[in-house]
Amino acid sequence: MPVGTLASVKGVSQDVLEDLGVQILLANTYHLYLRPGVETVRQMGGLHRFMSWDRAILTDSGGFQVFSLTELRKVSEEGVAFRSHLDGSSQFLSPEKAMEIQIALGADIIMAFDECTEYPADASRARASMELTLRWGARCKDYFEEHKGEVPWSSSHLSSLSSQEKQVLRFAQGDNRGNDNRGKGHFQTQSLFGIVQGGMDPALRRESAERTIDIGFPGYAIGGLSVGEPRELTRDIVLSTLEHLPSDQPRYLMGVGTPEEIAEYAQAGVDMMDCVLPTRAARHGLLFTSEGRVSIKQARYTQDESALDPACDCRVCKRYSRAYLRHLYASNELLAQVLNTIHNLHYYLATMRTVRAWIRAGSRL
Amino acid sequence: MPVGTLASVKGVSQDVLEDLGVQILLANTYHLYLRPGVETVRQMGGLHRFMSWDRAILTDSGGFQVFSLTELRKVSEEGVAFRSHLDGSSQFLSPEKAMEIQIALGADIIMAFDECTEYPADASRARASMELTLRWGARCKDYFEEHKGEVPWSSSHLSSLSSQEKQVLRFAQGDNRGNDNRGKGHFQTQSLFGIVQGGMDPALRRESAERTIDIGFPGYAIGGLSVGEPRELTRDIVLSTLEHLPSDQPRYLMGVGTPEEIAEYAQAGVDMMDCVLPTRAARHGLLFTSEGRVSIKQARYTQDESALDPACDCRVCKRYSRAYLRHLYASNELLAQVLNTIHNLHYYLATMRTVRAWIRAGSRL
Repeated sequence: MPVGTLASVKGVSQDVLEDLGVQILLANTYHLYLRPGVETVRQMGGLHRFMSWDRAILTDSGGFQVFSLTELRKVSEEGVAFRSHLDGSSQFLSPEKAMEIQIALGADIIMAFDECTEYPADASRARASMELTLRWGARCKDYFEEHKGEVPWSSSHLSSLSSQEKQVLRFAQGDNRGNDNRGKGHFQTQSLFGIVQGGMDPALRRESAERTIDIGFPGYAIGGLSVGEPRELTRDIVLSTLEHLPSDQPRYLMGVGTPEEIAEYAQAGVDMMDCVLPTRAARHGLLFTSEGRVSIKQARYTQDESALDPACDCRVCKRYSRAYLRHLYASNELLAQVLNTIHNLHYYLATMRTVRAWIRAGSRL
Repeated sequence: MPVGTLASVKGVSQDVLEDLGVQILLANTYHLYLRPGVETVRQMGGLHRFMSWDRAILTDSGGFQVFSLTELRKVSEEGVAFRSHLDGSSQFLSPEKAMEIQIALGADIIMAFDECTEYPADASRARASMELTLRWGARCKDYFEEHKGEVPWSSSHLSSLSSQEKQVLRFAQGDNRGNDNRGKGHFQTQSLFGIVQGGMDPALRRESAERTIDIGFPGYAIGGLSVGEPRELTRDIVLSTLEHLPSDQPRYLMGVGTPEEIAEYAQAGVDMMDCVLPTRAARHGLLFTSEGRVSIKQARYTQDESALDPACDCRVCKRYSRAYLRHLYASNELLAQVLNTIHNLHYYLATMRTVRAWIRAGSRL
C-alpha cells in the first residue's frame, strides 16, 4: 500500500496511481485529524469522495503517529493526551475517539487504536503495553459495532440525489440493492482490523495474537515493528507471529519495508504491507531498480543517456534518461519528486506482482 | 508558450503537457547555461532529446535574466559580465556566446541577444540601449549564419546509427532527405528571431522595428515590456510596434501576460507569447477560471464540493473539488502545485484556442 498521508500520495495524481495499478492506499488518521479535520472529510462524503479515489483505502489508528511524532504525550487507561506537531494544541485520542474519526473518514479498512511498544522494552513493560492494547482493542470493537452505520457513504450519497431518487432508493434498500458509485452495498460497513503487539518476545506475541483473535476481527495486523530493532529480529518476530494468525484472513504487516523484505514477507504469508520508503526515498533521489539502488543525485549520471532502469517499463523509464532525472533532482525541480515517486511506486508494485505470480506458480524467490 | 525554465514546466510531466495540447515550450538559456550546463545538453543531443520533448521549443537569449536576476553586471559593447545567482561565479554573455549556447541547446526558435532597456529610461538612454541591441542583433545573425550547422540534432542522430546506416545517410544528405526522429530535414536549421527594443517611445520603437527588419530575421519579437511600466503603456507600445512588423512573419510579444491580455494581443496580431504567470500563480494557489480568479487557499473553499471551474473540462476540474484542492494547498502538498499548474495551463491554452476560433470566424472578443 502506497502511503498517502494527507489524502495524497505526495506529487502523484490519482489517475497516475490508477495507471500504476494501485489497488489500495494508506492514509494517516493523525494527520487528517489535524488537517483538514475530520468534520470536513465527513461533510465531503468520506475520504474516497474527498480525494476522488474509488479504489480501496486503509486508515491507521493514529496511534503510531502519536507515539512517533509527538514528544509531549501522556498515556492513561483512557487514551493518549498529546500536543499537535503543527500548532502545539492539546489533543486527546482514545480507542473510541480513534474509531469515531476513522468511521467519519470512511476508509474501507480501519485499524484498532493500539499502543506501539517502544524498543527496547523490558518484559514487564512489554506485557503491560500488550495488555493495554488488548483492552483498547476490545473497546475499539465495541464502539465500532455500535457506530459502524455512521460511515458517511450513505448520507453523502443520498444528499446528492433528488427526492424522487431517494424514495426509489428507500425501497431498494429493503433488498440491499442500493449502491453508491463505488459499487458498495448500501448497508455494507468498514472492516476493523485488530493489531498484535508484544514487543520482541515471541511468547508475548503469541499470547497477543491469540487474545486478539478471541476479540475477533476480520483481519489482523502485526504492529510494533520497525521501531529501531535489528532487521533480523524484525524477521524472527514477523515469522513467529504469522504462525498464530489465521491464514484465511488478511494478515497485515505494518510499516515494512524494502523491496527485498516485502518479497520475503509476502511469500511467508503476509497479505498486506505499507511503507513510506518508496515515496520518501524517491523524494530524496534514492531509486530502486533491477540493478540495485540508484542515488540519482550523483554526478556520474550527468551525461548518462540510459534509462534509470533499462528493465523497467514504467512511464519514467520508457521516456526519460538518467541525465535528465539527475538534472531535475540537482536543480531542485518539482518534476524530480514526481517522476522519482512514480518510478519507485511502479518498482514496488511490480515486485508484488512478481511475488503474486511466484505464489500462484508455487515457486519461491 | 508555457515556460519550462530548466527544461521542465515545474511539476508537470511531458506526457501531460502533450495531453494539454502544448505545441511549443519556452526554456531559459541563462538557467540552462548554469544548470545542467550547455555541454551536457549538447552531448545529450540538444534540449528536445534531453527532456524528451518532440514538439517545438524556443529559448530566450539569456539577456532578460541577466538584467533581471543578477545585480552585479557590467554592460560593454562586447557583452555583459555578471555573477551567477547560484554561486556568484563570474560569467560573460555576448551576442556570439548567446548564439553559441542556443545553437548547442538546439531549440527550434532561438532569440537574438538584446539589452532589455530598464524602465523608466530617458530619451538618450533609450536610444543608446536600442542602438546597442541593433548592433548586437547584427552580430547574432552573423554568428548564427556561420555556425548554424553546428546544432546537435545531426551528430546526436548520427552517433546512434551503425556505420552502414551512416554511409547510407551521407548519400541521402546530398538529396536533403536525411531526417532525425523529430522529422526535421537533416540540413534544416534553427530559426533566429530579432528583438525590437526602444523603451516606451513609439518613434524609437518604429525605428528599432525597421532597422531590425533591415538586418533580416524569419520572425520578430517585441522585447523590453512588462518591466514595471503601467499596463496601459504596455498596450500602447505593443499596438504601435505591431504595425511596423511584417504580418506574414511570426510576431512574438515577450513576457505577456494575463488571460485577458493574451486574448487582446492575439487578436491585435501577436502570434506568440510567453509568460510565467499561469505556472507561477498556480504554485501560489492563484487559479484562473471562467468565473474569475480563485485564490484556493481561502477558508471559504474548505467544504466546497464544486469543481474549481465548472465550465472547465481539464482533468483537474473533472475530477477534484475545490475542497480537495484547498486542502492540498493548505497542507503544502506537492500535488497542489502539480494540479494547480495543470489547470492554469489548460485555461491559458483553452483561451488561445478560443481566440484562434474567433480569428478564423472573423469575430472579436
